[in-house]
Amino acid sequence: MSDPSNAFKALKNSRPPPPFELPLPESPDVITANMLKLNTLTPSPRMKFIMDKLVEHTHKFVNDTNLTTEEWMTAIQFLTRVGQKSTDIRQEFILLSDVMGISALVDALNNPTVGKGTESSVLGPFFTEDASEIGNGESIASEGKGEYMWVEGRVLNTAGQPIANATIDTWETDHFGLYDTQYKDRGAPDCRGRLKSGEDGSYAFRAVVPVSYPIPGDGPVGEILEGLGRHNMRPNHLHMMLEAPGYRKLTTALYPEGDTYLTSDVVFGVKKSLVVSLEEVKSEAEARAKGFPTGDSYKLLKRDFIMVSLEEAQKASGAAK
Amino acid sequence: MSDPSNAFKALKNSRPPPPFELPLPESPDVITANMLKLNTLTPSPRMKFIMDKLVEHTHKFVNDTNLTTEEWMTAIQFLTRVGQKSTDIRQEFILLSDVMGISALVDALNNPTVGKGTESSVLGPFFTEDASEIGNGESIASEGKGEYMWVEGRVLNTAGQPIANATIDTWETDHFGLYDTQYKDRGAPDCRGRLKSGEDGSYAFRAVVPVSYPIPGDGPVGEILEGLGRHNMRPNHLHMMLEAPGYRKLTTALYPEGDTYLTSDVVFGVKKSLVVSLEEVKSEAEARAKGFPTGDSYKLLKRDFIMVSLEEAQKASGAAK
Repeated sequence: MSDPSNAFKALKNSRPPPPFELPLPESPDVITANMLKLNTLTPSPRMKFIMDKLVEHTHKFVNDTNLTTEEWMTAIQFLTRVGQKSTDIRQEFILLSDVMGISALVDALNNPTVGKGTESSVLGPFFTEDASEIGNGESIASEGKGEYMWVEGRVLNTAGQPIANATIDTWETDHFGLYDTQYKDRGAPDCRGRLKSGEDGSYAFRAVVPVSYPIPGDGPVGEILEGLGRHNMRPNHLHMMLEAPGYRKLTTALYPEGDTYLTSDVVFGVKKSLVVSLEEVKSEAEARAKGFPTGDSYKLLKRDFIMVSLEEAQKASGAAK
Repeated sequence: MSDPSNAFKALKNSRPPPPFELPLPESPDVITANMLKLNTLTPSPRMKFIMDKLVEHTHKFVNDTNLTTEEWMTAIQFLTRVGQKSTDIRQEFILLSDVMGISALVDALNNPTVGKGTESSVLGPFFTEDASEIGNGESIASEGKGEYMWVEGRVLNTAGQPIANATIDTWETDHFGLYDTQYKDRGAPDCRGRLKSGEDGSYAFRAVVPVSYPIPGDGPVGEILEGLGRHNMRPNHLHMMLEAPGYRKLTTALYPEGDTYLTSDVVFGVKKSLVVSLEEVKSEAEARAKGFPTGDSYKLLKRDFIMVSLEEAQKASGAAK
């Protein structure tokens, strides 16, 4: 036990001691002041700014709460488990950020409303690249996946002019509140599809009425929601993602009104402008005409999407900074 | 793909929707307000208070920095890797808390100075339970582990009266800046020991002069220190942990003055009152008398420890709240 080459030796990094003296702490506030002074060594001005704010808020949080050593250790262990629960197909830290309202806040700040442009909503973990392309009026759902729903509308620019040939991705749960990717025997993609807007910007497809569902509760995020007395449900919704050359990509979702969890979405995805009403159409003839194979009624969802040009988005983003 | 029992289905938890309506967000500040309103569901008042402060500071951090989606994703991925780097024998989240000054701040708030009581310092990851018991004046280090150091002093209460039979744990690096546990072929414990104070509170032991060393740089914490332009070194120090019935456990360390990294300890462990001076004793006769087998000099570290009674600690803690 005397050969240092046979030891788990950490390596000294390339950084010298700071070119200034830091006072040795005689009180807690000196620790914060020293940390901020050390931040002046940060080469990137943006990173320094972010670190300053991080130190300010984390240290103030500890001070404000008079956090005990036990509470701090509980938090450390909680965050460690959040990292360790994450895998290639599950991101528990995003989920934590979601239920804390942080993801929604970042989304709101980064995608400011531009004029009449349709607002964004969270992407969520269930988007896939392999959805089938469907033609106008065709179905994204196989038969027996839920209550029939007809979705139609137009893709427009902020001046109200049609955007032709926009790519529209849409995905949703079946009547069990499950996405196709959650089935262990998922075969072909289901309850998801990709289509194009027509020359007049119009689009239409058949789908099913989506169903509310819980986010994963078997990890640390599930535990903290229980501790906070909060349910873990998302209200039912239809995901929509629109892309067209020259326009800002629009990731959004539509939330049918009336869902039990509409105003308390566990991940704060709902925005007022994205709530839609479903109209009941009771007509066997209409149902057949729309292409639904059986039944004498369906729900109708009518909704236009207004895309923001890249130029408009840049201007708005500049103004927000 | 239609049997929900054959799906990765998350389970709805036991919590009902909140008994109040939340306004649907039309602007970012409504997200924060809704999150705070949801916190009123928290059964534990202490947890509600902590969550309120956490929401306040995390949301304000995002607002203050106008954090971009890319920066937020970088942070998510960083925190995930911090969790995933942690194992049974390595805690990267504690390390992150350490280099951010948060551990030192929590320690300072939880262990307020009581009168003339010796101040605390960070425990660190190198304490072990298996140190050998040594008698008064014996050595904690085997021969050849570094420059000789004689440590002596008394264990006292705040009134200056001796505390007899206090248990003293002490541990340190060898001359390579390595703890015994870092050697892959660690045999018996070395550079660590446990002893008792005498009837007059006195203690003395032989050791070696400890050496500064880097904290692990091969993980996300190492990366962020590089990004911040900060070295990853701790100044040299001798750990001391004292226990005696009726007194608050004292976890501390002594920091010899003159170390290159004394005022910029990467984990903010140094406190002014814990800096000590080592006196050079040049006398072969003295060295032999102290029990050092060879050489004609050694370093002398004289230091008393003042322990705070449980009663005093409780009073101080009550006053700090």
